Amino acid sequence: MVERIKDVGEFGLIRRIRELLDREGVSTPGVTLGIGDDTAAFLPRPGCEILITCDSLVEGRHFLPDWITFEALGRRAMVQNISDIGAMGGRPLYALVSLGLKEDLPLEKIDDLYRGFLKELNPFQASIIGGNLTRCGAELFIDITLIGEAEQGKTLKRGGARKGDALLVSGCPGRAAAGLDLLLHRPDDPRLKDHPLVRAYQTPTHRARLGEKVARAGWATAMIDISDGFLGDLGHILSESRVGARLFPERFPIPQELKEAAEELGRNPLAFFLGPSDDYELIITCPPENAEKILDLGKALDPPVSLTVVGAINDRPEVITLAAGDGTETPVSLGGWDHFLEKTRRRKNG
Amino acid sequence: MVERIKDVGEFGLIRRIRELLDREGVSTPGVTLGIGDDTAAFLPRPGCEILITCDSLVEGRHFLPDWITFEALGRRAMVQNISDIGAMGGRPLYALVSLGLKEDLPLEKIDDLYRGFLKELNPFQASIIGGNLTRCGAELFIDITLIGEAEQGKTLKRGGARKGDALLVSGCPGRAAAGLDLLLHRPDDPRLKDHPLVRAYQTPTHRARLGEKVARAGWATAMIDISDGFLGDLGHILSESRVGARLFPERFPIPQELKEAAEELGRNPLAFFLGPSDDYELIITCPPENAEKILDLGKALDPPVSLTVVGAINDRPEVITLAAGDGTETPVSLGGWDHFLEKTRRRKNG
Repeated sequence: MVERIKDVGEFGLIRRIRELLDREGVSTPGVTLGIGDDTAAFLPRPGCEILITCDSLVEGRHFLPDWITFEALGRRAMVQNISDIGAMGGRPLYALVSLGLKEDLPLEKIDDLYRGFLKELNPFQASIIGGNLTRCGAELFIDITLIGEAEQGKTLKRGGARKGDALLVSGCPGRAAAGLDLLLHRPDDPRLKDHPLVRAYQTPTHRARLGEKVARAGWATAMIDISDGFLGDLGHILSESRVGARLFPERFPIPQELKEAAEELGRNPLAFFLGPSDDYELIITCPPENAEKILDLGKALDPPVSLTVVGAINDRPEVITLAAGDGTETPVSLGGWDHFLEKTRRRKNG
Repeated sequence: MVERIKDVGEFGLIRRIRELLDREGVSTPGVTLGIGDDTAAFLPRPGCEILITCDSLVEGRHFLPDWITFEALGRRAMVQNISDIGAMGGRPLYALVSLGLKEDLPLEKIDDLYRGFLKELNPFQASIIGGNLTRCGAELFIDITLIGEAEQGKTLKRGGARKGDALLVSGCPGRAAAGLDLLLHRPDDPRLKDHPLVRAYQTPTHRARLGEKVARAGWATAMIDISDGFLGDLGHILSESRVGARLFPERFPIPQELKEAAEELGRNPLAFFLGPSDDYELIITCPPENAEKILDLGKALDPPVSLTVVGAINDRPEVITLAAGDGTETPVSLGGWDHFLEKTRRRKNG
């Protein structure tokens, strides 16, 4: 018989989760009080800023339970948050997990969800120190608060990009969006689950280790992770820094698999690269003389992370242009994912 | 025309919220990065532990939008969390607000919700430094993460109660449950909204200022706030401290209004005092010689908070008895609210 939440109740479920975390999780230095009191508590390290972020996934909105395992769901929920800490140049430490759960959910699915969280947290020696469980009716939700630390004054914000800076991107943005489109295009093809683009969508990777190294080195001027799509998140840097960007589409890192998927889907691969996509890659700006050193930081990671110079910052606030090899420049719209408008944002771009 | 979320989109809504917070909120020392980047950041004070808690409210589960204003909803959501920080002896500093919202919600309701948050945060010079907005379908949810601080080593946990300790409670537990029952009993009576018990249910008060003073004084051994009901939360202290409690029902603070409501509802007022009720009062244990000093701490607050000695701690693990004036003792079940079982928990109590 499958055991479900309603069979053990809230307190039985909390006990089960604590046991799983004790068995399969790690312990993070600094925790003075973990799960099981009114609050969790920790002692911050002197000389460090505390970083804090939260992000949620809602059933039907960000995932469909039939399309994703609970372990993959847990990984994705945690990666979102780790990516945000990494994009500031920080290192994840402690997570609080708040869940809205249906009472007939099998307990094994909850185990899988927490195993997904731990798969992402354990490599950082980061741990779950608290949270909240409540019953929901129609839509399961996962809301994670992640706390990290960064050396005081070493965080990398969105507002630091300067005219003349080089514009770098890690990995290959657009892969997750293409993976999702493949799933929508061939919903009944079981082979798709092993397709690299579908995997990029289901279990994306964060670049938090790269982000921390870049921030510590002090060579960059601004950094952001891509969760609204390349143009959307570049737009955040441009508006906070009051600058513009000239992009070199011929240099965009577009892998063969993305070109093939775009052809199958009848779309331009550039649209995947630029448009809404949850890739959790990093956009980084830096003085041009530092670009090569930052590329080397990526190469030195294990596994290495490829970085590409895809543009340059100029002083035309919030204007983005595509510069072709023949010298022509085309303005493009700043577009990003808007949860409520459900379309790419459009702004005047001069 | 009523302006709704879908008219302005996620980014328009974020802008509106930031403007409201700038206008009507306060700024908290230590914030190095507020709303508008990948994470928020703050610089912790040396010698302080960081406390962190999260709690959520889900539509249909914890509230019905037709029965409560959005300002009251915001206050209640924040009070839950402030109460947890206070129950550790801490002071609230920073909040992250994660919302699941329906796209047709009028923007004015969102303003009201944030005004409710600020009404509770501003008196502490505490502020909202981040959060997340997402769209939901059927059930609105509010998930708040609250961060506080306490002097290192001065937090009051659940596990410190010792044999011989006095057992104190603030205010009058059970008022919120009686208020809810009155609403269910007379759903169409418009006068009820001003009834003190209904107000206790709709906009409960936390005891965080008392909690902080008690912890700093160092006179108490354990503390918890009541969110599962008096017996349920006393049970947490007893199980974590491995002790039992003898209660003196004749001393229970049961106000006239609660007696009258119990009579109208055909219930025993003791059941309201002991049973599930979200009152956010504090249960405190301390050596008997400190009890009077803690009562005085409550009296010295502005406004004063009444405290009552309602029992004594003994060494019978997790056993609770009611001691009548005639010397007889009756064991009672440990009961608390369980979100998934939806009934009071029952444990063997010896």
